[in-house]
Amino acid sequence: MPVQPRTPQGVLELLPSQQLAFQRMLDTIRRGFERFGFLPIETPAFELTDVLLTKSGGETEKQVYFVQSTGSLEAGKPPELALRFDLTVPLARYVAEHEAQLNFPFRRYQIQRVYRGERAQKGRFREFYQCDVDVIGKDTLSIAYDSELPALIHGIFVELAFGKFTICVNNRKLLRGLLDALGIETHDDVLHEIDRLRKIGRGKVEESVAAIVGAERAKALLDTLTSPWPGVAAELRAKGNATLTEGVDELERVHQGTLALGVPASQIQVDLSIVRGLDYYTGTVYETFLDEHPEYGSICSGGRYDNLAGHYTKSKLPGVGISIGVTRLLSQMLEAEKAAPAKRSIAQVGVVNFDPAFAAEYAAIARELRAAALNVDVYGGTAKPGKQLQYFDRGGIPLALILAKREHDAGVVKIKDLRAAEGTEHDVPRGELVARVRELLR
Amino acid sequence: MPVQPRTPQGVLELLPSQQLAFQRMLDTIRRGFERFGFLPIETPAFELTDVLLTKSGGETEKQVYFVQSTGSLEAGKPPELALRFDLTVPLARYVAEHEAQLNFPFRRYQIQRVYRGERAQKGRFREFYQCDVDVIGKDTLSIAYDSELPALIHGIFVELAFGKFTICVNNRKLLRGLLDALGIETHDDVLHEIDRLRKIGRGKVEESVAAIVGAERAKALLDTLTSPWPGVAAELRAKGNATLTEGVDELERVHQGTLALGVPASQIQVDLSIVRGLDYYTGTVYETFLDEHPEYGSICSGGRYDNLAGHYTKSKLPGVGISIGVTRLLSQMLEAEKAAPAKRSIAQVGVVNFDPAFAAEYAAIARELRAAALNVDVYGGTAKPGKQLQYFDRGGIPLALILAKREHDAGVVKIKDLRAAEGTEHDVPRGELVARVRELLR
Repeated sequence: MPVQPRTPQGVLELLPSQQLAFQRMLDTIRRGFERFGFLPIETPAFELTDVLLTKSGGETEKQVYFVQSTGSLEAGKPPELALRFDLTVPLARYVAEHEAQLNFPFRRYQIQRVYRGERAQKGRFREFYQCDVDVIGKDTLSIAYDSELPALIHGIFVELAFGKFTICVNNRKLLRGLLDALGIETHDDVLHEIDRLRKIGRGKVEESVAAIVGAERAKALLDTLTSPWPGVAAELRAKGNATLTEGVDELERVHQGTLALGVPASQIQVDLSIVRGLDYYTGTVYETFLDEHPEYGSICSGGRYDNLAGHYTKSKLPGVGISIGVTRLLSQMLEAEKAAPAKRSIAQVGVVNFDPAFAAEYAAIARELRAAALNVDVYGGTAKPGKQLQYFDRGGIPLALILAKREHDAGVVKIKDLRAAEGTEHDVPRGELVARVRELLR
Repeated sequence: MPVQPRTPQGVLELLPSQQLAFQRMLDTIRRGFERFGFLPIETPAFELTDVLLTKSGGETEKQVYFVQSTGSLEAGKPPELALRFDLTVPLARYVAEHEAQLNFPFRRYQIQRVYRGERAQKGRFREFYQCDVDVIGKDTLSIAYDSELPALIHGIFVELAFGKFTICVNNRKLLRGLLDALGIETHDDVLHEIDRLRKIGRGKVEESVAAIVGAERAKALLDTLTSPWPGVAAELRAKGNATLTEGVDELERVHQGTLALGVPASQIQVDLSIVRGLDYYTGTVYETFLDEHPEYGSICSGGRYDNLAGHYTKSKLPGVGISIGVTRLLSQMLEAEKAAPAKRSIAQVGVVNFDPAFAAEYAAIARELRAAALNVDVYGGTAKPGKQLQYFDRGGIPLALILAKREHDAGVVKIKDLRAAEGTEHDVPRGELVARVRELLR
């Protein structure tokens, strides 16, 4: 009686053609990170429990997956290991542990899975990928790095081709300074409401802010936050609050720096209502939206923080980072593709095993194409040629090669283009095969 | 009081330059798999416990890591999830679960980490990578695929450049048929001894085999197994045992097929003493040795099996696969490199922030180089130029660009080649920068 083969709830397991699409996404992201000189790191899936949970309050800990070997389980010991729930804590641990061997400012990227014991629901995953990129300084880190991340993200999203997108940038010093300047003391509560501006609109947000700080201040605050940049900068500077002015200066510099790195003005937008979490970020903050899919929320977020690894080292390690929510992007792409799944293949050429007498010739052809950096699938079995072609076509392989006695005697190979509905055929001289295949694949 | 930042025992966490070397290894392996049309799949790190442990006896289960969320731990429930300990069981589950949507023969590769609760000791890892590649047929699978795997492995190891290597191939039908023909019934015990031939030599193995089947048969068996191929083939066929003859035929065909696919005769060797595990494999078996490091043992092994997923489906799914022990290869590479760690970088060019007045110019240069697919690190801070150059050099970045007032006025950029001990410098006209950088990197 076989066991029912099934995956746990809340994981995203892909069919090969989906996996290919995902792999191409990850490759594009990686290439984008590397273009700016970021170095790869990987950390173990599990960390020691006491190391992982230093800074957690209740919410994080509730979502942690603990790991135990059979022996430890039987002995009834508390779990020594736990799966990482993000890439930030492992980064902090990594930088603190290897501090002496790292080269600061340390540019690292990390593309790995993380684990959260979420209640299963649509769009929530228990295992999902994060793609994080950060620059970590020792003692100080120039604001110049804050301009690089939007430029890097811009390059990646242009290549990913999910449609038009806007990178929004703001500054937490500006926000806090502004609240101070308006005499508002309940920063976190007010910022929490501001954070919902994009979702629920000005009317509702102003109402909730008014409930905290009164109608007049609420209006003043929201008027300012929704004023267009850079016009509002002078007004903000005029308030004479040092933190606010510092925030305005930084924001201006980050915006200008990003433009200098080639991001079109239409795609990098200063948006004073971007808040991005409550505690962690201390300066620049980023969010990114697909213009045609605002309902996805921010698909790429991050910001500047004062000190990465205070739980692990006395060194002060300021940084700036950004993270791409790649599993969510993928699951939305797959959703969109449901009606008509795309065909994708690794092999570019399929060689039909038409007549086993020519097996050595098929091997020679495959060898030649592979030496020319083409990916080739040679059919091994002796199914009828029609079935073999069907196999290649179903696998999304664009070209099939046929060589039977007729072709052999004529010194040609037949290339069948499986992308065309009618399956166009070309007889190609054996010596021109690689060139013609390349041409057809172009 | 900070928590001591540290990784659990038995994991291999790499510094960035080591991670780069490893990533290049994995990229080479992946490219090699793709050259033969294999498709990527990934499975979740954890599986449902009842699905993962269907076929395990005691030994596997002892090494399994169980996974529990806080809630489940507190409720004292038995763990519902466990981390995969290899990629074979997840492959079986995957193919059985998605059978209807897969295209058979199904070529898949999988490069992921696996987890084993091993006792910590040198060379044993609790988390390590496996790189597996398999072709799975439905009902049948042509022996032609058995020739492809050594050809694929050959291509990869040539590129990995670990030095000379030999792929050894044998056939379990041949072994079992030979034992039958010699009237030996205790197959598993005898094969277990034969498996140690390469490690402990003929004398000791013959002794232990003699203890099981008597001196005469032991000698006859070992004489045959150490006879050179293909001379011994006729002798084996003459014994008239059907299984033995089938094994000889298959082995001959696999060997010939591999040669046809371009593997040099000196690197593919029929070795009748290769056994490769006891139960799982039923036909062709492979092992691979580094000629200069026999002490590493087989760095790449696999074989043909009759039925992949009998625990999950009634479909018969024969397959052939091979696995590269990449974590061990890496750890040995790092060991060898200990005395003189190699410098490796992602960035090919570092732009010195010589004078912040030229920041826009530095950004423009970086943009230009990146558009030409070069990886560029622009120094953000205002450290002294000497310190910046030191940073680039320590990071293994080969070229640094300097542009100060002198260069700006002359319309040039200074390229400093950090690979040369004396740091050769070239003044290059601004318009020729990309071309000259490319040339120097060649």
